[in-house]
Amino acid sequence: MIYLDNAATTWPKPESVWQEVLRAGQEYGANPGRASHQMAIDASRAIYKARVALAQLFNAPDPLRIVFTLNTTEALNMAIFGTIKANDHVITSSLEHNSVARPLKILQDRGVEVTYLQGDEYGYIKPEELKKALRKNSKAFIFSQGSNVTGTLQNAEILTKKAKEYGLKVIIDGAQTAGVHDINIKDWGIDLLAFPGHKGLLGPQGTGGLWIGEDCQIDPLYYGGTGSQSESEYQPTMLPDRFESGTQNGPGIAGLAAGIAFIQQEGREKIENHEKNLTTKLLDGLSKIKKVTLYGPPAQLPRAAVISFNVEGIEASEFGFLLDKAYQIAVRTGLHCAPLAHRRIGTLESGTVRISPGYFTTEKEIDQVLAVMEELIAEV
Amino acid sequence: MIYLDNAATTWPKPESVWQEVLRAGQEYGANPGRASHQMAIDASRAIYKARVALAQLFNAPDPLRIVFTLNTTEALNMAIFGTIKANDHVITSSLEHNSVARPLKILQDRGVEVTYLQGDEYGYIKPEELKKALRKNSKAFIFSQGSNVTGTLQNAEILTKKAKEYGLKVIIDGAQTAGVHDINIKDWGIDLLAFPGHKGLLGPQGTGGLWIGEDCQIDPLYYGGTGSQSESEYQPTMLPDRFESGTQNGPGIAGLAAGIAFIQQEGREKIENHEKNLTTKLLDGLSKIKKVTLYGPPAQLPRAAVISFNVEGIEASEFGFLLDKAYQIAVRTGLHCAPLAHRRIGTLESGTVRISPGYFTTEKEIDQVLAVMEELIAEV
Repeated sequence: MIYLDNAATTWPKPESVWQEVLRAGQEYGANPGRASHQMAIDASRAIYKARVALAQLFNAPDPLRIVFTLNTTEALNMAIFGTIKANDHVITSSLEHNSVARPLKILQDRGVEVTYLQGDEYGYIKPEELKKALRKNSKAFIFSQGSNVTGTLQNAEILTKKAKEYGLKVIIDGAQTAGVHDINIKDWGIDLLAFPGHKGLLGPQGTGGLWIGEDCQIDPLYYGGTGSQSESEYQPTMLPDRFESGTQNGPGIAGLAAGIAFIQQEGREKIENHEKNLTTKLLDGLSKIKKVTLYGPPAQLPRAAVISFNVEGIEASEFGFLLDKAYQIAVRTGLHCAPLAHRRIGTLESGTVRISPGYFTTEKEIDQVLAVMEELIAEV
Repeated sequence: MIYLDNAATTWPKPESVWQEVLRAGQEYGANPGRASHQMAIDASRAIYKARVALAQLFNAPDPLRIVFTLNTTEALNMAIFGTIKANDHVITSSLEHNSVARPLKILQDRGVEVTYLQGDEYGYIKPEELKKALRKNSKAFIFSQGSNVTGTLQNAEILTKKAKEYGLKVIIDGAQTAGVHDINIKDWGIDLLAFPGHKGLLGPQGTGGLWIGEDCQIDPLYYGGTGSQSESEYQPTMLPDRFESGTQNGPGIAGLAAGIAFIQQEGREKIENHEKNLTTKLLDGLSKIKKVTLYGPPAQLPRAAVISFNVEGIEASEFGFLLDKAYQIAVRTGLHCAPLAHRRIGTLESGTVRISPGYFTTEKEIDQVLAVMEELIAEV
């Protein structure tokens, strides 16, 4: 099987990730931060270790301001509903995933104004466009660093710095970039960064998180026991407790720490380069196959390892089905939970076939996939 | 090590639980419900299997109305914020965990009225007390089936049936009972049941869920991609998708299914009986040790396997510390995230030492623990 659905979740994970999940579950499987016995302390330590590793990777000034969530969506909802209040104006991109678009739609129904920046032909946003969109009540700028449909990789550094100049809170959706592309919380000035644990960070599903900058006074999405200030009827104000009610995914987070350790050992840039090479190879090969329409930026422009295309004469879903059944090649087809982006590239009806290689994808696999595509498409 | 903190999280888990987590991660670690390739289908199936197992165990009429969450707290918040609106009146018990008390406090600040039923000397609530608390705007009755401080096990069947008669929505916190004590959604008429995956159900941390009855039109806590109706700007109305935005904890939920399968094999009643025996033995033994003050109901009354006590002349935290360091006995000390319950039993200042045996605790271990306690307390 050739797995090319890494934009949904990376697979496989480094062997050390599952070893640590197992060790966490079997050797120190207590409830972290809820007791003072040794096993609970070990569980707390493993979670703290993950926080420190994330802070290091993202250059976050304080590991305790990184809070864990079930997934990126939950983190984005915390950031969005926490930051944006009635009568605010929000600026976002036209390439957003439903994890941003749907919360914003709810807020629009409550009277929040939203501007969707179109960007250039590939959806890249320039600071000038952001500046033009500013209003008196503009509160925040929310954007996905890398599109999960077109692969468009924004210049998050410039956009963040400019947005901060304009007095906006910056919320970044790092779903397609965290662990692979550079993210620098401190130097860029990111206010809120939502990230998945199970994609570029190579951890298990069921993990994700949110960086919450010091200037962000946001409310939790939910309230409950935190193992701290238990005598108070109110949620503690201190982080991470304020945003981590109830039992955390201990073994999952321990596995995530192992994933990050793997990235640190290999070197993030090496992973980025490998994915870049595979993406270039794929774009190059696909562009030579007749009947293939590629979406998103060419290889020489900044890109995440996400490639969307369609084949003339065959529906995306059918093409994906054939790849899976006849060749055991796992890709994704459809709307990828991002109708905004599909409207942007004119594929809201058709969807696309999406190929997303990962660090464990080999060049040989890409060659095989391209050969299969050529063969399949010739038969269409 | 003798682990007696099962009320926080059960440990160890059945070996099959970690095997399935591993298999899910390594063999079918794709993103469930997000693609049509084989590995994604296998991942979806594993999650569906867990839903069916839960529906069976709780006698729920529709597995698709069981939604997965990060933990019980999140599930309770969904249920509470989804059901109770401004100007409603809510009835609850005086033994609630902060996962119920803190959301209710937020709602009180928004004008919701809350009545805390005191119950009898052990906190058992009688239907008459519930009836007396009814007001014109009474909307819901929320109670934990088993207290995580005193072990008080409510007669959830009678309370649910009566509350339904009174026209209330019934929200049950099954944190201390799901998987061990009887819960019957259909026969009792439970509207919303929040449960942890990692306690009595023997699954991994990072899993939990909420049963949402057909008559409950509740809003999600967060919005995003669901892999369904992706073209819509709004959250789908169908369950479970409406409440499961973003990537689910696939391997965790697969592990949970294995935990439930273990329970079904052993027989839930067998587990309940074993825990009852251990609890009786513990209560019996502790009641014979001088200087020990036991809280909560005696063994002959309905009880969860949670025992709280204090020792004259030594603080709870210090006693717990000694048990851990000198004898490797893991218990929990403090407020157990339930200040309401501590106020109820007069231990809001001191906290308690809490012992919670589980299915894997042996009678021999209980004997050892009792012997250690006697020795330790004699030295105080």
